[in-house]
Amino acid sequence: MPSTLPQAEDHVDVLIVGAGPAGLMLANWLSRCDVKTRIVDKRGTKIFSGQADGLQCRTLEIFDSFDFADRAWRESNHMIEICLWNPDDQGRIRRSDRIPDTIPGISRFQQVVLHQGRIERFFLDAIKEHSDILVERGVLPTAFEFDATKADDFNDYPINVTVRSLSDEESTPQQQQQQQHHKSGDGKETTVSDGLFRSNLAADDTDDLIRSAESDPAVDRVESIKAKFLVGCDGAHSWVRRQLGYQLEGDSTDYIWGVLDIVPITDFPDIRQRCAIHSANAGSVMVIPRENKLVRLYIQLQATEHAQAGGKADRSWITPGIILQSAQKILHPYKLDYSYCDWWTAYQIGQRVGDQFSLKERVFLAGDAVHTHSPKAGQGMNVSMQDTYNLGWKLAHVVKGYSDPAILKTYQSERRKIAQDLIAFDHRFSRLFSGRPAKDIMDEEGVSMEEFKTAFEKGNEFASGIAVNYGSSIIVAKEGDSAKQGDGTDVASLDNTTCVISKPQVATKIDVGKRMPSFKVLNQSDARPYHFQELLKSNGRWRIVVFPGKLGLAPNMRRMQKLGARLESPDSFLHRYTPAHQPIDSVIEVLTVHAGPRESLELLDLPESFHPYSETMGWDYWKVFVDDQSYHEGHGQAYANYGIDPIQGASVILRPDQYVSWVGKVDDYEDMERFFSAFMRPRQLEKE
Amino acid sequence: MPSTLPQAEDHVDVLIVGAGPAGLMLANWLSRCDVKTRIVDKRGTKIFSGQADGLQCRTLEIFDSFDFADRAWRESNHMIEICLWNPDDQGRIRRSDRIPDTIPGISRFQQVVLHQGRIERFFLDAIKEHSDILVERGVLPTAFEFDATKADDFNDYPINVTVRSLSDEESTPQQQQQQQHHKSGDGKETTVSDGLFRSNLAADDTDDLIRSAESDPAVDRVESIKAKFLVGCDGAHSWVRRQLGYQLEGDSTDYIWGVLDIVPITDFPDIRQRCAIHSANAGSVMVIPRENKLVRLYIQLQATEHAQAGGKADRSWITPGIILQSAQKILHPYKLDYSYCDWWTAYQIGQRVGDQFSLKERVFLAGDAVHTHSPKAGQGMNVSMQDTYNLGWKLAHVVKGYSDPAILKTYQSERRKIAQDLIAFDHRFSRLFSGRPAKDIMDEEGVSMEEFKTAFEKGNEFASGIAVNYGSSIIVAKEGDSAKQGDGTDVASLDNTTCVISKPQVATKIDVGKRMPSFKVLNQSDARPYHFQELLKSNGRWRIVVFPGKLGLAPNMRRMQKLGARLESPDSFLHRYTPAHQPIDSVIEVLTVHAGPRESLELLDLPESFHPYSETMGWDYWKVFVDDQSYHEGHGQAYANYGIDPIQGASVILRPDQYVSWVGKVDDYEDMERFFSAFMRPRQLEKE
Repeated sequence: MPSTLPQAEDHVDVLIVGAGPAGLMLANWLSRCDVKTRIVDKRGTKIFSGQADGLQCRTLEIFDSFDFADRAWRESNHMIEICLWNPDDQGRIRRSDRIPDTIPGISRFQQVVLHQGRIERFFLDAIKEHSDILVERGVLPTAFEFDATKADDFNDYPINVTVRSLSDEESTPQQQQQQQHHKSGDGKETTVSDGLFRSNLAADDTDDLIRSAESDPAVDRVESIKAKFLVGCDGAHSWVRRQLGYQLEGDSTDYIWGVLDIVPITDFPDIRQRCAIHSANAGSVMVIPRENKLVRLYIQLQATEHAQAGGKADRSWITPGIILQSAQKILHPYKLDYSYCDWWTAYQIGQRVGDQFSLKERVFLAGDAVHTHSPKAGQGMNVSMQDTYNLGWKLAHVVKGYSDPAILKTYQSERRKIAQDLIAFDHRFSRLFSGRPAKDIMDEEGVSMEEFKTAFEKGNEFASGIAVNYGSSIIVAKEGDSAKQGDGTDVASLDNTTCVISKPQVATKIDVGKRMPSFKVLNQSDARPYHFQELLKSNGRWRIVVFPGKLGLAPNMRRMQKLGARLESPDSFLHRYTPAHQPIDSVIEVLTVHAGPRESLELLDLPESFHPYSETMGWDYWKVFVDDQSYHEGHGQAYANYGIDPIQGASVILRPDQYVSWVGKVDDYEDMERFFSAFMRPRQLEKE
Repeated sequence: MPSTLPQAEDHVDVLIVGAGPAGLMLANWLSRCDVKTRIVDKRGTKIFSGQADGLQCRTLEIFDSFDFADRAWRESNHMIEICLWNPDDQGRIRRSDRIPDTIPGISRFQQVVLHQGRIERFFLDAIKEHSDILVERGVLPTAFEFDATKADDFNDYPINVTVRSLSDEESTPQQQQQQQHHKSGDGKETTVSDGLFRSNLAADDTDDLIRSAESDPAVDRVESIKAKFLVGCDGAHSWVRRQLGYQLEGDSTDYIWGVLDIVPITDFPDIRQRCAIHSANAGSVMVIPRENKLVRLYIQLQATEHAQAGGKADRSWITPGIILQSAQKILHPYKLDYSYCDWWTAYQIGQRVGDQFSLKERVFLAGDAVHTHSPKAGQGMNVSMQDTYNLGWKLAHVVKGYSDPAILKTYQSERRKIAQDLIAFDHRFSRLFSGRPAKDIMDEEGVSMEEFKTAFEKGNEFASGIAVNYGSSIIVAKEGDSAKQGDGTDVASLDNTTCVISKPQVATKIDVGKRMPSFKVLNQSDARPYHFQELLKSNGRWRIVVFPGKLGLAPNMRRMQKLGARLESPDSFLHRYTPAHQPIDSVIEVLTVHAGPRESLELLDLPESFHPYSETMGWDYWKVFVDDQSYHEGHGQAYANYGIDPIQGASVILRPDQYVSWVGKVDDYEDMERFFSAFMRPRQLEKE
């Protein structure tokens, strides 16, 4: 029975439901862009152990753009090598292969493992440093209204969400068992916490929580939040998704897996490597070494007899001891035991994708709310965070009036396509990993270990996150059918006069639609080496990167002077899209990387556009870089690595999320202008 | 008039007076070693801007051993290139040379600049993380007593220091002027804080503070601290030094320098480089670009007419405006102005070294209390911190009963020698920098710019801190006269039977007495690359590093098995010097770096000594490393870089501060034992 008393009311630009990695990434983005944001979560506390753990190299690049990759890099366990273990002729497991965990050269980071609780901590610290946004825990949304008549005015608030504050008791999930005892090999008993309440084997408790909250008479615990945008980052049981009536499409398998986070006592030689172990008949184990001497084991449970026909498995029989026994059978003849278990859970593999990611570009779904799959490829948390990394700057630019709302359609186009790819990958990989190894070439029911290795290696590229290639759209200027390159959503330019196509031949190793690769360059003014991506902080700015080639050549310098003059002109697109009284680099930043040598140029030889002047701070010494030999860190060979001719040069437009929008000639001023004019709003319109 | 009422009393192992960088480094060391420590400082707050700023690469290595180099590296400005500017034939300043700021290859770090307040913050955070030690501010020592009859019993407390808590008003230094206005070029006025109260142009206020505190009737603000050890880190006016009656020997020059920390507005092209600028007739400027867009300028003031004959200069005429005018003259024809000044000060160069660094190895002096010099080489804070980095572990080992007090004599022997070298360097460098450039080769009064450049380059090696080479002593097993290699103190072995000499030919590029160089090696168990120094954390442990060569060779493996068996034996020196119930690696840690390939070895093939077992944690996977190719970070070539033959191998003993004590053959067990027996105390003695 809802309360009938007056409710408190608030107006926000963005309301985020769910403070897991996807929700926190979004709040973090918006905290850098000065967008009025609230974020609520029904749970009373953040998590402290277990849960997701793998961080892809692309995720670390994104963390670095928010200035906290170093914390993750430092605390995490680094994944360097994968060992594959398979049964030999006698059925005994043997190490059959060693392969690098991260493909060498694709990123300046490699995959690492760190528990989700630490990652949430980094986000919370970053949000606090940049804004007043507080994560509101123990706050449950109980009602949702959408006024479609307001949906076309992006300054209006079509969304109304009622939220209620829960008591501490309501917001603390029950452990499956209060005291989970395990008797280890030496007879000692230990107590551990389990993650089953978040597992897909657990029933959702949201409806119970709503009923419990609504029967509470305290009126000050109810609030009505009016929002321009609502984003559901509230997990596989998403309450926001249910309000929209959207579905997860796909199905679940009969495979049940157990997970143990333990400090292992073992003679298995590769316990500190990532391992995929196929036993002859006892199932499979994946070994994921973690921080703090922990190792995570994903262990296939021989448990089909316990599964309920056609539905969720009964989980009451699963204990750490049962999971350990399964692992011991698979690892035989090696010994495995533990005296410390940090966390454990069990899950049934299911693969599903949401049918829609958005309601009229006012309500969005992200993360587990729109894709669920198996955890073993270390993908879930990464793809979820990358969903909202894609969405955050788009919301901010629409809220601030920089951009036409049309860019918001690219969220579903870009991210639903990724989710579909992920589920296809996971489907294939899970089958290969859960299957019994083939005894020989005639054993058609068994899984070929050669096929598994090939899939594993290919999977690594996908899993790195570096391969993501967004399709043609209003913000990605490349050839092709934008519907086919995405999930089918129409995201093409609004009209043909603004349609710009890149000239990929001028930068043959920069792929339009992929994230900008990174090589070392030197600051012109102080010779300090930077990885180029370090210059691409996630602060909401578009960037034009000018590669003018060798500036010792008079035509190249003249070309720069001409481009500089056009950019400096009061009617240039730079000035047109930058609000008055904001620094000229605050919406679109111009960076330069010349082909060297560094000593051939003085910074002040270049026009002011390339190193803006401030009356209080003098010249900007952090915009012009050079591809040259460093004293201590070698030569980045950026021109060669980007495929840019040091005579001809190139220009590149990067989205605020580091993805490449356009490549063209150094002085293609008209194409740059046309590109931006397709979706940017001139500052004059702001005042209307 | 001292209070006659009963005083509070406390007993501590170590009392530190002064919470600047030297005092905080010591507190930080002791916080890792579980030593009962108090640290007091008469000032009411830490400093927030200005003061010392340069961090040498050796200092960063030390910070890394305490796990916070990454914070300094991240926040600081990196010093990459030095530009030398000299007058040309027409007397106009020109860039004459570019040289690297840090000599390439000497360290994995390069020199950086970050203000002292941040560095103190890193120490404070680290101390808090590892102990309950609190920095007690506004606490002034007022009386010192030393009971020489207790000085020979190192379990007794010969020291008694009376301390009084100051009021907030007493502990806050007065700014020279409450409102320091500067009218910049555009007519705007700004307010800045100055550092003159800490400058050597300021009178010491300690006696005033003592008088003021003693006249205060509040009895609860007086305390008597009995200490085993007292360390004076209380600056150039050191109160502790005065209690001992020790002197600073040396003299001061007539040169007066001003310092400005500003955000410069200038067309001088190298303002973001470290520059040494000699004008023809207007004096010299050193440019030190800093963090947060600041630049520090050291500016020679044309001010001899203001100096008092034979003493301290009058400072009342010095203002930021005067200093700026001098800089403008020197930099002409380039323009220089600012609208933001963060800090400023002025000083007169003086070079002095303490005559003694210790009283009976119970009271020690460190940092500015025993050496003062000019700040421009960025040395002062570094040498001061390295003083107490040298002392900290020695105090801890004596307090804990691991070591004979004889090792404490090496503090003066090692650090007074360094101070003498520093002053000699500074004397020469200051003269060259303050002098007028020679007009031509016949101008004997002028300074040759060639000579200046040579001195600058040589100075860079000294200034890096990497060149430090401690002399022969009870803890540095090398040839030569230990008195001559140090400051004259007798630090040789107590008797000849324990005298061990290294075999330098087995590791030709590891210098006994210098810090262990660092190259990348891979962890045997997970293939992760580490810079070798990363394994040498400052946790108080001695280390034996075994380089067994190629373990695929049967004789090499047999040698390791023999060494392992001897170390495992209950009467081995490892067991003899490790207190019962402590882990076997807690006093002396054994690390192994084999010559590869990594795939030729399984960890458990090696004896247990090299990867100790714990009943709760299993095998230790972080003791055995390999010199091999990594997937992502190249090949460290450690054997080649250390000058070790991969067939013969070598063993190395490292002090807890990373300095090399001894090198010998892989299985020189007897020499290792004799080395340690010269100063280590067997655990049996503890119980007596």
